[in-house]
Parts: sequence; C-alpha cells; structure tokens
Amino acid sequence: MSLAEMQAPIHRDEAAIAAVVEGLRATYGDRLSTSQAVREQHGHTTTWLKTQAPDAVVFAQSTEEVSDIVKRCAARKVPVIAFGAGSSLEGHVNAPGGGVCIDLSQMNAILEVNAEDLDCKVQAGVTRKQLNTDLRDSGLFFPIDPGADATIGGMTATRASGTNAVRYGTMKDAVLGLTVVTATGAVIHTGGRARKSSAGYDLTRLFVGSEGTLGIVTEITLKLFGQPEAISGGMCSFPSIKAACDAVIMTIQCGLPVARIELLDPLQVRACNIYSKLTLPEEPTLFLEFHGSESGVREQAETFGGIAEEFGGSEFRWATKAEDRTALWQARHDAYWASFTLRPGAKGVATDVCVPISRLADCVAETQRDLDENKLLATIVGHVGDGNFHVLVLVDEEDAGEVERAEAFVGRLNGRAIDFGGTCTGEHGIGQGKMKYMVKEHGPALDVMRAVKQALDPDRILNPGKILPEA
Amino acid sequence: MSLAEMQAPIHRDEAAIAAVVEGLRATYGDRLSTSQAVREQHGHTTTWLKTQAPDAVVFAQSTEEVSDIVKRCAARKVPVIAFGAGSSLEGHVNAPGGGVCIDLSQMNAILEVNAEDLDCKVQAGVTRKQLNTDLRDSGLFFPIDPGADATIGGMTATRASGTNAVRYGTMKDAVLGLTVVTATGAVIHTGGRARKSSAGYDLTRLFVGSEGTLGIVTEITLKLFGQPEAISGGMCSFPSIKAACDAVIMTIQCGLPVARIELLDPLQVRACNIYSKLTLPEEPTLFLEFHGSESGVREQAETFGGIAEEFGGSEFRWATKAEDRTALWQARHDAYWASFTLRPGAKGVATDVCVPISRLADCVAETQRDLDENKLLATIVGHVGDGNFHVLVLVDEEDAGEVERAEAFVGRLNGRAIDFGGTCTGEHGIGQGKMKYMVKEHGPALDVMRAVKQALDPDRILNPGKILPEA
Repeated sequence: MSLAEMQAPIHRDEAAIAAVVEGLRATYGDRLSTSQAVREQHGHTTTWLKTQAPDAVVFAQSTEEVSDIVKRCAARKVPVIAFGAGSSLEGHVNAPGGGVCIDLSQMNAILEVNAEDLDCKVQAGVTRKQLNTDLRDSGLFFPIDPGADATIGGMTATRASGTNAVRYGTMKDAVLGLTVVTATGAVIHTGGRARKSSAGYDLTRLFVGSEGTLGIVTEITLKLFGQPEAISGGMCSFPSIKAACDAVIMTIQCGLPVARIELLDPLQVRACNIYSKLTLPEEPTLFLEFHGSESGVREQAETFGGIAEEFGGSEFRWATKAEDRTALWQARHDAYWASFTLRPGAKGVATDVCVPISRLADCVAETQRDLDENKLLATIVGHVGDGNFHVLVLVDEEDAGEVERAEAFVGRLNGRAIDFGGTCTGEHGIGQGKMKYMVKEHGPALDVMRAVKQALDPDRILNPGKILPEA
Repeated sequence: MSLAEMQAPIHRDEAAIAAVVEGLRATYGDRLSTSQAVREQHGHTTTWLKTQAPDAVVFAQSTEEVSDIVKRCAARKVPVIAFGAGSSLEGHVNAPGGGVCIDLSQMNAILEVNAEDLDCKVQAGVTRKQLNTDLRDSGLFFPIDPGADATIGGMTATRASGTNAVRYGTMKDAVLGLTVVTATGAVIHTGGRARKSSAGYDLTRLFVGSEGTLGIVTEITLKLFGQPEAISGGMCSFPSIKAACDAVIMTIQCGLPVARIELLDPLQVRACNIYSKLTLPEEPTLFLEFHGSESGVREQAETFGGIAEEFGGSEFRWATKAEDRTALWQARHDAYWASFTLRPGAKGVATDVCVPISRLADCVAETQRDLDENKLLATIVGHVGDGNFHVLVLVDEEDAGEVERAEAFVGRLNGRAIDFGGTCTGEHGIGQGKMKYMVKEHGPALDVMRAVKQALDPDRILNPGKILPEA
C-alpha cells in the first residue's frame, strides 16, 4: 500500500455536505468555520502525511452539541471527525472524504475531582498539562505524558502513553469511564467510578484507542495518583544499546518500581546536547526517575546503580536538585525538536513500534543497521521499560529517492517489530499511516474489528479511512 | 425480573441438537458424554440458581477441536457453552437452551514462560494454582486469586480478580493476548506479547469479561510478576466499619503500595474463628499484606500502623512467620466456607458489588442495616482497596419467605451499589443472576453491547441467555 493509497480519497456527496454545513452554520454561527486556514489547520498532520482538510470545522461546547452535529451528519451520511489538539502523528484527523470536523478544544472543563477516590472527570478538550496545573494543590497528579500537550480526549482516542507508562500504565489503564456520542448521535456512558467491574462488555476499553471511528468521546473519568513523597532521577551511559537494554530487563525483572526509564541513542544524545545545552557523553544513555518515600527512592536508585554496574554502565549521574531534574526531563520531552538540529530544514518522519523487552536490543540493533545501510539519518528514543521505541528519520523532502528509502525503512521497521512478537505502534496509533500493517499484525482478527465497526457505524461516517484497511 | 425469568428457557431445535450431538459422538467418542451426572455437573451453579444442564459435554483437547465443535454447532444454530472449573457464581455455565458444553479442563498445558519478559502463554484449562506451582522455581508468580482454583480461561471470561487486585490489577490488566474461537469457528489471535499497543480496537479487552458470549477463549498470554523479595502481613481491628474504611482510604491516598487489604465484618471474623480455629477479636478487621524489599515492607507496615492508630485501630498484629501468614490467608480464602458454620445446612446466596471507596463505609453500613431489618444472616468480606465487597446470605431454602427476602435484599444491594456510583459486580460477572441490573447500570450503553453481540454472534449460539437481558 503506497502513501497515496493510504490516503485514498473517499467518495463525497457534495450536496449532502453542503446542506449539513449550511444547517450547522445557521445554528452555530461564528462557531462554524469554513475558512481555508482553519480547515487546513484541522487536517494538519505533524509528520509526512499530506493534509486533507474537512469542509467545515465546528467548535462544540457540550456533549449535547456534539450529539446534535453527529445526528445531522448521520442523517445525510456526511463524515464527522473529532479534533482535540491536532498533535497525533499518523494522519488521524485528516478528512479524506471531507465532511465536518468537530473541534472539542472549547470543551475544556474539569468537571469533578474526587480526591478520596483518586479520580476525576473532565471534558474531552482538557489538556494533560491543564489538568496537572489544576491538580497541583490537591496532592494528586495525572501521570500519562505523551510528548505533546495533547487533549485527554485525543489521548483516549489513540490509547496514548508516554514516559511514565512503565509505572502508571497507559490510557487503557487510566480511563475508568466515558461519555460517548455514537454514530447515531446517541449519548452513552460506559464504565463508571468503581475501580473494577465485571458487569458486561468492556465498552470503555473498546472506545479507548478507536480513534474516533466508533464514537466521539466527550467526557472522560480518569484515575489519578498521589504525588510521590519523593522523586529522584538521573542518567547513566552504557557501552552499547544491548548493555543498556539488558540493564532495563534486569530492572523490570527485579520488580524495581521505576517510574521512568528512557533510552536515548548516541545521535539523540548529541541532538539533546546541542538543543538543550547539555554535555552528556554521546553514548547509549538511560534517563531514570524513581518515585516513592525518601528512603524508598534512595533504595531504588542504589539497586539500579548495582544493576547498571553489572552491565558496564557508567556511574549513575544524579539530578538531585529539582531544577536539574526538570531540565533533564525537559530535554527528554524536547528530544523530538532537538533531532532537527542534526539536519536543519529536514522533514521528520516519526514512527513508533513496541516489542517484548527481551527482543528490544536486537530490534534496535537491526534498525540501526538498516538505517546505516540505507544512508538515513535518524534518532532513536525509547520508553524501554515497555519495549516501546521511536525512530525519527530526518529526510530531505526534495530528494524523492531519500523519501522513498525512508518510507521503505518504516515499512521494514514495522514488519520487524511484528516479527519480533511486537506491534506496529505502542502509542501513536494507526490513523492512515499504519493501516497497511494491520493485516500482518492482526490476521483474521481484523475481520472481527471490521464487524464491530460495521455494527457501530454502518454508514462509516465516523472518521472514515482510518484504522481499518479496505477488505 | 424474577428468578424464573432470568433463567427463562430458550427455544430448542431438538432435531438440530440431536444431529450435532450424534456427529460429535462419532468424532470424539469417549470424550463426549451425555450422562445425566456429567451434564448436571456442567450446568452446576455454586449458588442459588437452578441447574440447567447441556445436552452433551465434549472434552476438547485443542483449539482446532474447539473450532471444529463450534463450526458444527454454528451450522445447526445449536448453543455452545464453554466450561472451565465450574466455579462461577451467577449461573454462567447454565444451558437454558441446552446444547453442547465444551469442557476445556483437558487443555491444561503451560505453553510458554518467558522469564525475561515476565509473561507466559497457557491453555484455557490451566488453573491459577497449577500455574503458580509451575512458576515456583522461576522467581515469578501470577497474582490474581479468586477464591476458587478457577481456570485461567474462566477467569478471563468473567474478568476475575481477588485479594491482590489493589496492587496487581484484575484479569483486564493481566491478559496481554488471546486465542479465541469465534461464533463461526474461526480462530483469531488478539493482542500479543508487547506490553502496550495502539494498533486498532482492543479486542483483547472486549473478550475479557464477555463470559463466552462473543467467542471461546482457548489460549491466554498473561503478565507475570517477580516474586517479592519480602512479604509481611498481619491484621488490625477497628471500632467500626467506617473507621476501617477510612483507614483504607488514607492508605490508598498515601500511595502505599499495599498488596492486599481485606475487610471482614464481625460476623465473618466469628465464622473464621470457628472454622479456622483462630482467636481474633470479633470486630471489623483488616487483613493486610505488604510486598517489597525487606526495608520497604517494614516501612509500609510502619506507615500503615500510623494510619490505623489515627482511626482508632488496634495495635497491628503481625503474622511474621511464613506459616502464620499462610494460615491467615488460608482463613481469608476459606471465609466463604467458614460462613456456613454460622448456620449449618443453610444455602449460601453469594453476591458482590463494587463502589468508589469513599462510598464504601456508607454502602456497607446501609447493607448491614438492611440485613438486620430483614432478619437475614449474612457475612461481609471485602477487597476494600478496590471498594469491592461480598455478601453471603445464609438462607433456609425450605423457607419460601426467607428466600424471597434474600432475593429482594440482593436486588436492593445491587441497586444501592449502582446508586453510589458503583457497579452491580466487581468480579463475579453477570451470568444469569445479574442480568436484571444491566439496564439500571448501563442505560443506553446496553444497546451498544447488544450491537456488538449481534455483530459477532448473530445466531446467538454462544452461551445464550447470559449478560444481555432481552430488549
């Protein structure tokens, strides 16, 4: 499947689209936009996929409005695409058949914080940073941190995770319940505030990660965590990726409750040194963070120090002061942008895969060999406690041969991850960009996914052209 | 919905059933049984629901055989019911329309243990104790422990949990991937060995807890955990249920990574004293267990001691020796059987609900008042770190009035839990017994569950008459 095929245009019923847009304009007035700039921004993709703009963007302010908009689209079989912060990476918000984009960013109220139960309820447009700012004085925090300041709705839709997942889980684990607008415009509530339930099908988990193709998430009930009494962190260099990965495996196997354990390859370290003005040795490096009691984090760090030594790691370099730790993790979060310092003007092709951690070192090593052989410049960072790593290929867009080599590389990388018993995406999602790997990864299970889609959205109005390749 | 309605017989196509059974007999010979004893044992329910036996029981030995049996049933629209250990509590394995029961207990091979990745793959008939016995020398363990020695397949089907869930999660969290035979007899694989994935719909979580109504689980890939370096535990009495629950809330809020925190009401303590020859004060009591490093468990226990004191708890009584700890937890696991010592010859009506922990004390207090007002004898135990508690009503089956009062009580209890923002079952599942609460708990979301069922099993051959009440 070529890039063009992945983004294949979908049949448009021009009259239906025009009628729905005009009707919405009458109701939503200024909160509906058909300007080219707004439409393009809402079909914008952060990476290499081309923008496919919707016909109109409506800024919804309530679940009832989302329901109203979906009902109108359903009546005329017009595509409807939910939009949060637009930070997804695989063309999730593109509109290959045009239609109506529902921008949820104005639905940004934090509806409830239940400190005793360690949960909260937010509207879909709340961002993760907004939530944590709001929680700051409550003693609680929400741990899931994809690179961007994504919305909770978008993170739910893509089953996002981030650097803390090894300790605190992913959106699959964090979401207790949802309010969802279905393809008919019905409003349903899934899950609830109980910590566990065996009452019927797990619709919550069905909608988490469904990328707006089964329903539009408007409210999310989330698990929260107590802010740890103490946090410590630091970094450690290793003679090889293999040695670093072996240290990670041992760490996880020992049951050390590490909060973050991130791998940066030497090229990524160089980029971070330049961008974030650091002076780290340009070697395979682990960034770590420990959460717990004062004595607990000390003990964890000592245990890790012993493990690192066993695998030839450098002495553990502490970021003892809070500001040093913040600087370290800011550098990690800026790794994506830092990479571009290695090749200013280049286009970034970002991809992520996830493998069982025992296969991580081999998978990364093969990937580096593949990059070298194909003369591609790329940085690698990984949430290695989960076996998840990201490759950012820096490509000269004007060089057709290089673009082709990069696309072919991404294909091999994803196939390799699946062959290693892993998945073509640990946290970015499928969108348009990874549809072509769905058959290899899921085989006949794809038919079951298609049956679920057919049952919940028979007219295929919800974010069409995503996740499921044509049969 | 009355008990009779919950167990309403389903139309039987006698000729189709006879033809399928005869065909299966020709293939499976001795591994097919139509004896009344075997059939009744496979429709046996541990609690108050009446047995509805299947027409035949086949002992399958492979996924291919399960596929073959389902295909034959599908061809004639004959019901097919998966059976593990038969330890479910809500009539899950009953056959209100007869049909074929597939007993998976002979599929009890542990297929893989991947120590480096902390995962394993087992056939559905492996029991939790069998798995842990097998793992003993590996340094790993599987934490999920419903009271019975259930099969992993059955635990997957009911989204089971147990005393360790507060620390290690439920089957929702433990299952990484599945092999499932669908309603057409197709064999699919969901999930995989990667620790996380954003690649499409979460079919794994859709099948977990679906009680054999969407597909038959034949193989399960499970997360494992390292055996903790140190374990400590003990118990503590409180002046009231409220005080005990407040101590639990504080414990969870502090982020204390308690491995088990179990509440026993005074009546349950009395029963355990008799049955397990203990001498505990007959007061609201918490049993606790801490996992971690030597110093970590000491610190956790000290922290908990401080919390207990704050809420008027007794001094923490340590079970320092491993055999004392084993005796304590054996008593907890035997609590169900112990309850019958309070009223020998009684029938047990077991039910479980789960609420946000801030509502737990109120929910338990109202429940005890309800029991008193209705002159019902019942014990209460709870996995209170999750807000989940069990009530076992001891009923004289011969006393129709008492049976009716018990049924009405269970109805109020389930309604109360839902009204408190909770669920009608934390871990037992719906089966037949809790179908009547599905409308109240899920509202219009039930239509989405029905659509999923219709999509995956349009002829309703998979465990019919369970989970979803007739619309």
